[in-house]
Amino acid sequence: MITIKSPANIAFIKYWGQSDTQAVLPCNDSISMNLSACYTTIQLEVHKDSTHKQLFIKNYKAADFVEDTGAAFEKVVRMYERTRQFLGASKEFGFTVRSENSFPKKAGIASSASFFSGLAAAFSTAFGESLDQKRLSILSRLSGSGSACRSVPDGFAHWRKGTDSDSSYAEQLAPPDYWDIADIVCIVNAEEKKTGSEDGHKNAQTSGLFPSRLRELNDRIPDLLAAFKDKDFSWFGSIIEEETVSLHAVMMTQKVPLYYWSGGTLNILRSIAAMRQQGTEAYCTIDAGENVHVITRKNDVKAVVKHVQTNKLAKDTIVNYAAEGVRILS
Amino acid sequence: MITIKSPANIAFIKYWGQSDTQAVLPCNDSISMNLSACYTTIQLEVHKDSTHKQLFIKNYKAADFVEDTGAAFEKVVRMYERTRQFLGASKEFGFTVRSENSFPKKAGIASSASFFSGLAAAFSTAFGESLDQKRLSILSRLSGSGSACRSVPDGFAHWRKGTDSDSSYAEQLAPPDYWDIADIVCIVNAEEKKTGSEDGHKNAQTSGLFPSRLRELNDRIPDLLAAFKDKDFSWFGSIIEEETVSLHAVMMTQKVPLYYWSGGTLNILRSIAAMRQQGTEAYCTIDAGENVHVITRKNDVKAVVKHVQTNKLAKDTIVNYAAEGVRILS
Repeated sequence: MITIKSPANIAFIKYWGQSDTQAVLPCNDSISMNLSACYTTIQLEVHKDSTHKQLFIKNYKAADFVEDTGAAFEKVVRMYERTRQFLGASKEFGFTVRSENSFPKKAGIASSASFFSGLAAAFSTAFGESLDQKRLSILSRLSGSGSACRSVPDGFAHWRKGTDSDSSYAEQLAPPDYWDIADIVCIVNAEEKKTGSEDGHKNAQTSGLFPSRLRELNDRIPDLLAAFKDKDFSWFGSIIEEETVSLHAVMMTQKVPLYYWSGGTLNILRSIAAMRQQGTEAYCTIDAGENVHVITRKNDVKAVVKHVQTNKLAKDTIVNYAAEGVRILS
Repeated sequence: MITIKSPANIAFIKYWGQSDTQAVLPCNDSISMNLSACYTTIQLEVHKDSTHKQLFIKNYKAADFVEDTGAAFEKVVRMYERTRQFLGASKEFGFTVRSENSFPKKAGIASSASFFSGLAAAFSTAFGESLDQKRLSILSRLSGSGSACRSVPDGFAHWRKGTDSDSSYAEQLAPPDYWDIADIVCIVNAEEKKTGSEDGHKNAQTSGLFPSRLRELNDRIPDLLAAFKDKDFSWFGSIIEEETVSLHAVMMTQKVPLYYWSGGTLNILRSIAAMRQQGTEAYCTIDAGENVHVITRKNDVKAVVKHVQTNKLAKDTIVNYAAEGVRILS
């Protein structure tokens, strides 16, 4: 039995749009932090019978594992094949995968990132390979869920877009203890979203705003790195909120438009901006879903959580700090 | 007694941000349509006693006129002074202004545009001047509510940003009967918004996305004019929706951020996009408020209104076609 723990990650600079769909090469660099309280635990049982393939998922707050024979299962099988190909392995095996999330999946909390980075580690271990961080990040990227590659290094990660499959992977920007900023995930809706981010990526370039976004990133990425280096939280925060709005403007103007936000999303954006006006520094970032990640410093976490609860802005909150990357537990 | 009727207008390319606050010069051209069912009627009674100045407002669906002695009254007095200065008049007079809207004010339906263009016409008439369209448009622009200048010409208007006060005014792009497109105003909330657009303009340039927006407009404005010329509604519609999202992305990233949208706004955006997928062509545009203007062709008006009503997307709808500009009724 192989047990892997892998974190979701929150991107401060987002990944949206692919320059090469086949090789899963992104149109731009992205920068993220691994989440301490949002992770996937994967148990991989290997069978001699290579036709025996099963996936069991235990959802957030669910009592039991439930077998999945649908789209998620298909993806696991594809990931097994991809890993085999990547490693050039001749061996075959069957498997039972048990996956458990500490957070709601498919709700814009990068559940596919923690899942696929974990699977990459599990399958490569089962094939008898101990991949270095770079190769594990590349394999995770190839899963189809590109942002999985950022869950590999510990702490804060920088995924350089690269020019081909070998040069597109995430490296550590700083270890978890570098900066005590928190990501308070505010769960507006724990239901699964209707449009996954994979479809969205393919249409990124149908937005007339996409070229603007790429141009903006030429300044925004160096700015964010400088703010991170200086630990200038006001600068850092204002960049990530601008990045989020810019990303969602692209999504909303794609053909077909993706409106991930809800009234609950807007309430949080508005209320956090008002809170900032009153002196508590917190900034919002939103992935491909309606839930909001509120980024703040450790000293302000209690005040922000209280504010969110008092104003009934979220059904649930999950407080995260920077965490380690993929780990083989046993 | 002078009676003026002046329409609100909906901008397809929006006015946001000023290159010269004193002279009310915009950062970019804007393009609009006057609204047939959203207008202000102004009655101006002139008094010999120049200290006698009063404003009465009859709100949307209100039974009676109510005297306003606050901010709106101050603005009317300022507009009187500005008109006097603009005309170089030595005469002075007192006035009673009665203003009545056919639609909710301060809800992102350009109530200030119809009000101030109407006031410009009323006061200049009272000073004994018959301004040509260009001068009336300039005076309306100087009101402080710049977009008032677009309510002057009949039908569709193009406000060229100009280089100084004399070259920044709206001209007719096409008469009302040029194109039978409709603006279905979907009233999500008839309450007054908290932040007027005047304050917002001043902070436009604090958004990191503002330079992108101006660059985008270099292509978007000629594209919109070409789509308008060709009456290519699909092209036209997709441009106006992109323009709206781009504008609101700027607003949302200003320091202080302006989040005009609500859950109701998003529901309409999402639902109209879905309707389009099913073959009914309609597109959304949103001013500085949460209400949504759904632009469609005359043949689809019934279907869109029914869709909005059936899905309870709005409390009220107002169907507009292109209308004439400011009129001196008596």
